[in-house]
Amino acid sequence: MKGGLVTRTGRAVSLEGRPTGREHGPDAVVAAVRAYVDELAALGAERFGAAPAGVGLAVPGIVTATTATYSANIGWRDVPAEEFVPPGVPARLGHDVRTGGLAESVLGAGRDAGDFLFLSIGTGIAGAVVIAREPYGGSGGWGGEIGHAAVWPSGEPCACGQIGCLETYASASSIARRYEARSGRAATAKDVVSLAGAGDQVAAAVYDEAIEALAVALASYTLIMDPSLIVLGGGLSEAGPALFDPLGKRLAARLAFREAPPLRAAALGVQAGMLGAALLGWQAAGVYDAGRDWSLDVLRGGAVS
Amino acid sequence: MKGGLVTRTGRAVSLEGRPTGREHGPDAVVAAVRAYVDELAALGAERFGAAPAGVGLAVPGIVTATTATYSANIGWRDVPAEEFVPPGVPARLGHDVRTGGLAESVLGAGRDAGDFLFLSIGTGIAGAVVIAREPYGGSGGWGGEIGHAAVWPSGEPCACGQIGCLETYASASSIARRYEARSGRAATAKDVVSLAGAGDQVAAAVYDEAIEALAVALASYTLIMDPSLIVLGGGLSEAGPALFDPLGKRLAARLAFREAPPLRAAALGVQAGMLGAALLGWQAAGVYDAGRDWSLDVLRGGAVS
Repeated sequence: MKGGLVTRTGRAVSLEGRPTGREHGPDAVVAAVRAYVDELAALGAERFGAAPAGVGLAVPGIVTATTATYSANIGWRDVPAEEFVPPGVPARLGHDVRTGGLAESVLGAGRDAGDFLFLSIGTGIAGAVVIAREPYGGSGGWGGEIGHAAVWPSGEPCACGQIGCLETYASASSIARRYEARSGRAATAKDVVSLAGAGDQVAAAVYDEAIEALAVALASYTLIMDPSLIVLGGGLSEAGPALFDPLGKRLAARLAFREAPPLRAAALGVQAGMLGAALLGWQAAGVYDAGRDWSLDVLRGGAVS
Repeated sequence: MKGGLVTRTGRAVSLEGRPTGREHGPDAVVAAVRAYVDELAALGAERFGAAPAGVGLAVPGIVTATTATYSANIGWRDVPAEEFVPPGVPARLGHDVRTGGLAESVLGAGRDAGDFLFLSIGTGIAGAVVIAREPYGGSGGWGGEIGHAAVWPSGEPCACGQIGCLETYASASSIARRYEARSGRAATAKDVVSLAGAGDQVAAAVYDEAIEALAVALASYTLIMDPSLIVLGGGLSEAGPALFDPLGKRLAARLAFREAPPLRAAALGVQAGMLGAALLGWQAAGVYDAGRDWSLDVLRGGAVS
């Protein structure tokens, strides 16, 4: 886990990461988070001379603002937000990808768009459906699983047990896996993108299939949700024009009677989660307008190693 | 077009339909709507002794609350709501399917569900994404076009110009068209459902493909939007258990790591559009809590021929 302190005006201090200790079970993870929050509070007392006004936590799985409902990875069920923080400190939870989407909405690539999709393409694929600037998690916190929407419903089996999920064609790990399966050579997704650009036929085919899968899923999302913008984040988005140019063309080709929304690269990178958690922390403290005046340069400069 | 009068407490009077005159161009349609609204106002003066407090209009195409932005069928562009009503009467526009979704949300099958999908399966297929009881039209009013989400992206061409749209497999008109193409016999979708139940192999195959297409689209919707409920309306929903039973099973089979939301039949039938427009009319008049106490029996009994 990673964390940091962010002041009301956007001065930031990050703290080195800690293991979650999930091999010791869910209670150990809750205790490790609580200890890390205590460390951060001590750092805050030292740097800013103040106790935390609020704490925001981005967690995986199913989550509401007040409860970490379920995580298959960690194994916890129904952990109240209060268990992660010292007594009396207000806390607010968020889903990890939706928290990144919140940061992109308030101070990142979506800051001029009220209604957009933040799509994170990394080891897995997940989305934050942003409506009126707020990530929308659905009726029970299970929303945003666009990585498991079927793009080829008679296609390849996904590790999740379904057939033809977007993620099984287009995540960074799937691109690497599918390239190795066809070529016999291990490679990262970044390698595959480079190889495709250099004329490797197997890499070009695998990458092309990933782009087409993304186009199919994003076309359906566009038709149903009419976003003003699609923000792409996660490791694969670092491919830059090698991703955005073909995907933009394929998305437009999949839409006949309406225009495609623009694609834009996420602005906050790996900091999106921490910044989103900071916004949740300020919300927990009753401050709902924090963040829009935060300067990214200050934030980057303010991190301590 | 059809219309009626609905009082604050849900007493309703419907007026016989009128042609829109769309063969004479968009200006003629606006004039015909305006004349029909005048007729309704006169009927209201006679029956209730009062001028309309507000007017709601459900229109096709791209629409916001204040402007009929575009309709391919009618040909209009950017018609302000005021042009449809007498001077000084407040008016509010809604998309036709979303207006039906509003009625189902406030007083129909979704009245106990804040966040659900209303899917209308008729000549075409379209959805109303209902969030916190309100239909959500997207960033520009283009949302809800789930009928044109691709379910078989390498499949059959759709009339819209895209490939493999849900609508081209599963709308009532597509079911009829696909049966006729394979059997050489004309039939309605209702006939095809009956024939499939009676053991006709061609009908069973065509209907099975429609059910599977619906399951694929609704599984993706569920994963992304996490609705608490899916309400099925339109002509095909009248098939009852012949639709709901196989679709429920197929939808569950398409979801591996989460449960399927329940499927429920729309409660308001063809009246959903008029009731939703009545709710919009009351909203235009500043009354946002109308409808929840309206009795359907009274409404059905109150209609005049």
